[in-house]
Amino acid sequence: MHPTRWGAPSSATPLPAAARDLVELAFGLDEQPTVLGALPTSGLAADLVASLRAVVGPEHVLDDDETRRLRTRGKSTPDLVRARAGDLTDAPDVVVRPGDHEQVAAVLAWAVEHHVAVVPFGGGTSVTGGLVARREGYAGLVSLDLVRLKRLLDVDRVSMTATLEPGLRGPEAEALLAAEGLTLGHYPQSFEHATIGGFAATRSSGQSSAGYGRFDALVVGLRVATPRGEVALGSAPASAAGPDLRQLFLGSEGAFGVITAVTVRVRRRPATATYEGWRWPSFDAGAEAMRTLAQAGLLPSVIRLSDEDETALNLAHPDEVGAAPAGGCLMIVGHEGEPDVVAARRAAVTGVLEGLGGTPLGEGPGAAWVHGRFDAPYLRDSMLDVGVLVETLETATFWSRRAALHAAVKQALTASLGADAIVLCHVSHVYETGCSLYFTVATRAGADPLPRWRAAKAAASDAIVAAGATITHHHAVGTDHKPWLTREIGELGASVLRAVKADLDPTGILNPGVLVP
Amino acid sequence: MHPTRWGAPSSATPLPAAARDLVELAFGLDEQPTVLGALPTSGLAADLVASLRAVVGPEHVLDDDETRRLRTRGKSTPDLVRARAGDLTDAPDVVVRPGDHEQVAAVLAWAVEHHVAVVPFGGGTSVTGGLVARREGYAGLVSLDLVRLKRLLDVDRVSMTATLEPGLRGPEAEALLAAEGLTLGHYPQSFEHATIGGFAATRSSGQSSAGYGRFDALVVGLRVATPRGEVALGSAPASAAGPDLRQLFLGSEGAFGVITAVTVRVRRRPATATYEGWRWPSFDAGAEAMRTLAQAGLLPSVIRLSDEDETALNLAHPDEVGAAPAGGCLMIVGHEGEPDVVAARRAAVTGVLEGLGGTPLGEGPGAAWVHGRFDAPYLRDSMLDVGVLVETLETATFWSRRAALHAAVKQALTASLGADAIVLCHVSHVYETGCSLYFTVATRAGADPLPRWRAAKAAASDAIVAAGATITHHHAVGTDHKPWLTREIGELGASVLRAVKADLDPTGILNPGVLVP
Repeated sequence: MHPTRWGAPSSATPLPAAARDLVELAFGLDEQPTVLGALPTSGLAADLVASLRAVVGPEHVLDDDETRRLRTRGKSTPDLVRARAGDLTDAPDVVVRPGDHEQVAAVLAWAVEHHVAVVPFGGGTSVTGGLVARREGYAGLVSLDLVRLKRLLDVDRVSMTATLEPGLRGPEAEALLAAEGLTLGHYPQSFEHATIGGFAATRSSGQSSAGYGRFDALVVGLRVATPRGEVALGSAPASAAGPDLRQLFLGSEGAFGVITAVTVRVRRRPATATYEGWRWPSFDAGAEAMRTLAQAGLLPSVIRLSDEDETALNLAHPDEVGAAPAGGCLMIVGHEGEPDVVAARRAAVTGVLEGLGGTPLGEGPGAAWVHGRFDAPYLRDSMLDVGVLVETLETATFWSRRAALHAAVKQALTASLGADAIVLCHVSHVYETGCSLYFTVATRAGADPLPRWRAAKAAASDAIVAAGATITHHHAVGTDHKPWLTREIGELGASVLRAVKADLDPTGILNPGVLVP
Repeated sequence: MHPTRWGAPSSATPLPAAARDLVELAFGLDEQPTVLGALPTSGLAADLVASLRAVVGPEHVLDDDETRRLRTRGKSTPDLVRARAGDLTDAPDVVVRPGDHEQVAAVLAWAVEHHVAVVPFGGGTSVTGGLVARREGYAGLVSLDLVRLKRLLDVDRVSMTATLEPGLRGPEAEALLAAEGLTLGHYPQSFEHATIGGFAATRSSGQSSAGYGRFDALVVGLRVATPRGEVALGSAPASAAGPDLRQLFLGSEGAFGVITAVTVRVRRRPATATYEGWRWPSFDAGAEAMRTLAQAGLLPSVIRLSDEDETALNLAHPDEVGAAPAGGCLMIVGHEGEPDVVAARRAAVTGVLEGLGGTPLGEGPGAAWVHGRFDAPYLRDSMLDVGVLVETLETATFWSRRAALHAAVKQALTASLGADAIVLCHVSHVYETGCSLYFTVATRAGADPLPRWRAAKAAASDAIVAAGATITHHHAVGTDHKPWLTREIGELGASVLRAVKADLDPTGILNPGVLVP
């Protein structure tokens, strides 16, 4: 991973010709250089570095430029724009790599003793400023990299659970489970780089959430290291033993503790999988079909629906959507599982979709979606290379508010950015009572893109909260969403978060400034 | 409802002849009188009663004997035994009946000002001491009866949600929803008397949880009055906007606030319903079949499995289990929904169960179960009348620990109570990763049954925690389970509960001594 781009530096590719033509048509090309900025001098006192080395071993405390550079901020477009401009002011002083729960706990004890800020680091894929912690008032800032906690600790084939360490990236976790014939089925767009710990800490949701559930629905147990000691939760799938404290650590974004093990529900690897396209005359018609399936208990494993604009842009790349005819809205429907179960479910779903006016497009669009499902963040970098700022934001609401929310966010973004901005949307996750909306925005970057983007993001966030929707369905709060979090959960909800934080992290060393209002 | 019995006084019935014969055979008959004890003098100062009357109106502050008597403790067997012996020492000083959220908030403000303990009261069906609050150190103890908060506030037919007030009892809520063609599908054994607020505050689970979900899974929004103000949560079905604070108020047992509205997912009323019996050669074989269904995504709406002893006792009442042949273990399987969905699901489930060695018993046992599904608590009173103490306790764990948990709890109860105690068990709720176990114990009451029962309950609770299971799957913590709650969630988990309590209820007026360790 390179601080200025998504993924490994070797994965950087120039913009495909078709996309480059589109960009030239829409915005004009404005090639942007990247500045490899200088790192600030590591500010952690030498005796503190020495004592930290004693905790985890000298080889696991790193302060070379490249390591610090790669742990600077996350991967929001503002993060990328600042990194491309050479601004590395948020770099950690050192990167520490504990090897197990006990070493994580020891690092936290060291940080409390010396009042050093600690930023837990998994895949570094936050897009909401979750890695941009406050350093003022601390003796230094340490990136606590969980890269060495990569074990599959336990597989319980009877209960169909697995206990995973937090540093496992998506493909690593799936590979370990695949060797057992199992899968987690959690495929967010960040899958290739994000980690198990990050999935849990941010309440991640994957592209197959309709079939496998959000990550927080998969978690049955957690082990957490906090400045005050260990928390271990999860004695049953469900319980009435007071509030479900697991749901307090899921979404805690490193502010309450460091998750050191996650026990998740697993499933047998699907024997078969099919992904197909459906065309709908309108976004409303497609969304109503999703609602019908969800409320009939007939959700497929994957279901997504692009609005008219997103569908039209997708169709400008014929190689990516197969034989889909132009117009309307594209839905992707995927079924995974045992062949007989898939066949029965697919038949039932097809019957409903045909009855509601959907047009089947066959497996071409499905294959194109599978092929490109993790690609968008790479494309975002290539677009920045030619002067186009691309960013995403997402929300969720109940079905009855969906259409108004879609219109309000689109209107807020367009009003803020100007008519030449492109605003696309899709429904990415579906529930019985509602759905998420995922927006992609493209606009000319210009000389100083961040103030303009921040104003647009604030306008969209205001529209989201005004519509009664959530400020984030699966990107988490970080630092970027904090003002709207309080509006969503109220002053008293924010007060509860502060009380829990004060109890578990009384000196405030954990991810200062992140999540907690 | 009568303080010494379950349900309305008019529902008190003598023990059926067959049961009476069984009791005589097993324990001998020992007819026990009930003493209608004297109430302690209401201890709340006259000026406080007057100021409370000003808050809600004089007609809604009640201190007559009958009203106070009916709000004294809950319905655990220890609660019943104490009430039958005339011990009403825990009676509230007065009963206050606010009419809406604002009046609930005003009562809490009054209680804070005068340092009066407040016990939220819904259906009064707690079986874990959830209504036995501590009164020492307070100017008085008030039962906050939610009986006037009985409205269906909103129905969102698009999102399929309904907003209900907390004082609605199960049948009242279902009747309001039925008028809209909807159902909640939540049928715990306490259904006839327990309330929406109580279901939420205790993380209730109903007999159709396999098909409809536990109550906490139905809740998408909550409104709560706390001593520090209002909390309103629920902007989307799911969110990544920090920890899910809804899950902190679900299970808060009146200790963090008073739930004044609950928004729940609803479904269309099922057009058809079938309930049938299956016989399994052993409890293990039946439980394995349940696990197979759950992990194949084929759970019916209702699924329950009695162990050998519970099955044998049921079969001693041939009228209650229809044509079931003797021996083995009885499973009840129910399907509810649209006819075509039910037919397809029933065929798939039947195929799996037959393949695993189950013997179909037809709809006779299903009809008997439906007929008697809410009866056990009434029978408990009739058994106490003839000197037999009957009590239940329940837990949940992951599938791999089920058999060991069943054996350990049974062994602990038998060792504590003696070989002539009857210990029955059934699996009442099923998940992909595990299940609940629900134990029923019958033993001679004798002259002073409570110390003996408390020792047995402690032994069972120790065995539950030692087995790594939860101290309660759906009965909640109350006062009875507190020592084991800390063992389950750890000292730090308990500390978090105290921190949240201190934040929302800084003077500790809400249900003192309940839930929070």
